[in-house]
Amino acid sequence: MGDKEDFISRVNDLYRFEAIQGHLGWDQETIMPAKGAKSRGEILAWLAAQRHNRLIDPELGELISRLENQNLEDYFAANVREMRRKYDEAVKLPVEFVSEFTKARSEALIAWQKARSESDFSLFSSHLENMISLTRKRIEYLGCEHTPYDVLLDEYEVGMTVEDYDPLFAGLKARLVPLLNKIMNSGVEIPRLPEHMTFPADAQELFCNKVSIAMGFDFEAGRMDRSTHPFCAGLWPDDTRFTTRFDEKDPFSCLYAVMHESGHGLYEQGLPRDHSYSPVGMAVSLGVHESQSRFWENQIGRTAAFWKIAMPWFKEQFPDCPDWDNETLDLIANEVKPDFIRVEADEITYNLHIMVRYEIEKMIFNGSLEVKDIPKTWNRMMNEWFGIEVPNDSLGCLQDIHWSMGAFGYFPTYTLGNLYAAQLLQTMSVELGDIDDIISSGDWSGMLDWLREKIHDKGSVMTPAELIESATGSKPSPEPFLNYVETKYSKLYNL
Amino acid sequence: MGDKEDFISRVNDLYRFEAIQGHLGWDQETIMPAKGAKSRGEILAWLAAQRHNRLIDPELGELISRLENQNLEDYFAANVREMRRKYDEAVKLPVEFVSEFTKARSEALIAWQKARSESDFSLFSSHLENMISLTRKRIEYLGCEHTPYDVLLDEYEVGMTVEDYDPLFAGLKARLVPLLNKIMNSGVEIPRLPEHMTFPADAQELFCNKVSIAMGFDFEAGRMDRSTHPFCAGLWPDDTRFTTRFDEKDPFSCLYAVMHESGHGLYEQGLPRDHSYSPVGMAVSLGVHESQSRFWENQIGRTAAFWKIAMPWFKEQFPDCPDWDNETLDLIANEVKPDFIRVEADEITYNLHIMVRYEIEKMIFNGSLEVKDIPKTWNRMMNEWFGIEVPNDSLGCLQDIHWSMGAFGYFPTYTLGNLYAAQLLQTMSVELGDIDDIISSGDWSGMLDWLREKIHDKGSVMTPAELIESATGSKPSPEPFLNYVETKYSKLYNL
Repeated sequence: MGDKEDFISRVNDLYRFEAIQGHLGWDQETIMPAKGAKSRGEILAWLAAQRHNRLIDPELGELISRLENQNLEDYFAANVREMRRKYDEAVKLPVEFVSEFTKARSEALIAWQKARSESDFSLFSSHLENMISLTRKRIEYLGCEHTPYDVLLDEYEVGMTVEDYDPLFAGLKARLVPLLNKIMNSGVEIPRLPEHMTFPADAQELFCNKVSIAMGFDFEAGRMDRSTHPFCAGLWPDDTRFTTRFDEKDPFSCLYAVMHESGHGLYEQGLPRDHSYSPVGMAVSLGVHESQSRFWENQIGRTAAFWKIAMPWFKEQFPDCPDWDNETLDLIANEVKPDFIRVEADEITYNLHIMVRYEIEKMIFNGSLEVKDIPKTWNRMMNEWFGIEVPNDSLGCLQDIHWSMGAFGYFPTYTLGNLYAAQLLQTMSVELGDIDDIISSGDWSGMLDWLREKIHDKGSVMTPAELIESATGSKPSPEPFLNYVETKYSKLYNL
Repeated sequence: MGDKEDFISRVNDLYRFEAIQGHLGWDQETIMPAKGAKSRGEILAWLAAQRHNRLIDPELGELISRLENQNLEDYFAANVREMRRKYDEAVKLPVEFVSEFTKARSEALIAWQKARSESDFSLFSSHLENMISLTRKRIEYLGCEHTPYDVLLDEYEVGMTVEDYDPLFAGLKARLVPLLNKIMNSGVEIPRLPEHMTFPADAQELFCNKVSIAMGFDFEAGRMDRSTHPFCAGLWPDDTRFTTRFDEKDPFSCLYAVMHESGHGLYEQGLPRDHSYSPVGMAVSLGVHESQSRFWENQIGRTAAFWKIAMPWFKEQFPDCPDWDNETLDLIANEVKPDFIRVEADEITYNLHIMVRYEIEKMIFNGSLEVKDIPKTWNRMMNEWFGIEVPNDSLGCLQDIHWSMGAFGYFPTYTLGNLYAAQLLQTMSVELGDIDDIISSGDWSGMLDWLREKIHDKGSVMTPAELIESATGSKPSPEPFLNYVETKYSKLYNL
């Protein structure tokens, strides 16, 4: 077997282990019976160890080194580059450390769940301290070129550091806060759903299915299921699964979750099949993944044009709902309100939620914030930026799962997703014509084809920034997003 | 690491691969989207290769040899004995042969599905010939002590050969055929379900769930789902899943499938957890597994005492059903009728169906029957034994999946299951008291506890025959089964 074949065969095996982990994780979150948790945890840890031992095999390291000196086609070179990154990271982390981290994370996750449900930060704080100190240790092992936090940021979106994010967030804040104030003072009243109405889950499911199919999600190559928190799992070539949840008092919550997760699902279904089970066959980054979900959820779904098409489907399931016109539905779907919970936030306040987390993480890893002071820092920022008093930590610093999993540096990728999405929309409208017209036509396949060609088909052959530049002709920038929200919300709120 | 630790660690890894295969197989049969089939087939083949390569590792062979010379506790010795059997078999089969067999099996399975749906044996015959010739090759590799068919029989129920089965089946036939004739001439009319009634699947599901819970199936450590053919998969410690299907014109079909699969599930849920992922922690044989399903389905479920308890639950879901008394329901559930399909057969004709297959398999592997003559031999036997004319091969020799999978020698274990079940019932009634009284009490936990102690807890520490003897005080025998059916059906049909 030549070096190239040997390399790809080892890489494929690694990604097969990951796919199995993904499948068992999906099952755990959706349909696993409660008592199966113990053996599921055990098998997932075993799979992680199997994968890790193969990744740190010195023979793989030697193969990578030899291949780096060869002249390889783009896709192969990208695979070698990505495997170098993964290999170096894996060999730097001692096995005992990895297993200590995994164990601490399981315990932190359980402690966080309890702390959140009882809204008691003290139940979580020692675990959070532990996760932070283990993460610091991790940064040390990996080696730190700039600030420690940069190591974390780069992990979740290759190439991004505090030097990139600081001005980006400052620029966003400078225009989003005034926009928010104008909206809040616009005096526009948002229509409410009739209090007495309920929207049965089964009917919501039928409606949402129709929307997902219209987006292009292939249900012969995927599924929709239920879970506490909606998510999408790529799982296998031609088997992509996403989840949602149903609130019988609010059908829009499920709809936009489905559009969001279907957006992720379309990306997974569109990845290049020739490169399955290798890095270039995977989604390029969390930020780009999020751009695909936010594109469909917000830029397509939260428009009057969308409701022109979707209202008859909605009426089919809920014939008793009020006769709202498309503009009213547009307003309902785009209610702006400074509130406590990130995942329920509108497009304006969403990025401010991210900034709160970014600033706090930066302070933690710069050593200027102690864990015990997180709640009061969080609450102070929410008060200053949103003008609201956080009543308890469940609605405050305990709301997100990420820190319990040691996922520090992850949040900013959500904002990148919003920015990328707006930049893609802008270019798409130049190339395909007025997007509202396309949405109103009911045939959305041109938009999907465009995303397939510019984003999905490319897998991970480029870096995220290169991919956005190749798709839009410009480097990643917050400008299209700011223009998008300023135009959209000025119109909606008569500013 | 000592030899014992090394051995157990390798064995656990092998069984972890098997459990993952089991999980992905369950998913494939229940919820996988259609287009996922290709990548699912690929990953299952990969997992099989991973497992095989670990099994044939010469270091494992050396470990087994060294441990065979040590004085080990029972459980450990049983693990070594089982692994010796598996290791020897695996190393005797060349890797190319295993992959040729796997490929041929996939193709035969697809050909069989088409042949069955079109009732055209010619579409399947060349594949069947191939499976037979590969199986002969397999027997040669494994080494044949007695007749070639014995090698196959022993594989599915260790220790059983033609010398055991021939007299057993002859004895059964000698008493079952006269009993069948008497029943057919009894003149007893079986009440019919009202033609106009339908039984919605959701209501059937609620009813069946209640029955399964009453049997003791723990739904916090398991699930019930839907699939084309009902089955049960042990899957993981504390995560056992079975399936059923719904016929809205016939609620009994689903009920008895659920009782059958729940019986399998109770065995899986009761296996010794200390020995998970090793042979002694697994079900001891197909025959014993089938005894657990048939015990609950037939001996508990198809009785008037059962209906005394279950009728109120049934009425709750189907208030419009006729007011049958328990004896009438008992008769409906125990209708005896020589018919074409094995899986729908009653307790009397069921074993005759098995004997048809056993005799044909014996002829095939003795070289006295050619594949092209299977349909007419099958039809002749059905005519002689059942007095019915097989109208087409879908209702004849194409009905079962087993031969397309190369599972020759499997069928007789179904009969063993019936015999073991009756033998267990007999001993149970001596130790616990009148079984009808226990069933009528509605508290069935004493029966489950008894099965747990005598069968489930034991895992595979003994051979199947030893286990039955340890549970009942007698060697496996057809006598209790014959007494059971003669008593039961004489009463039902006033013989």
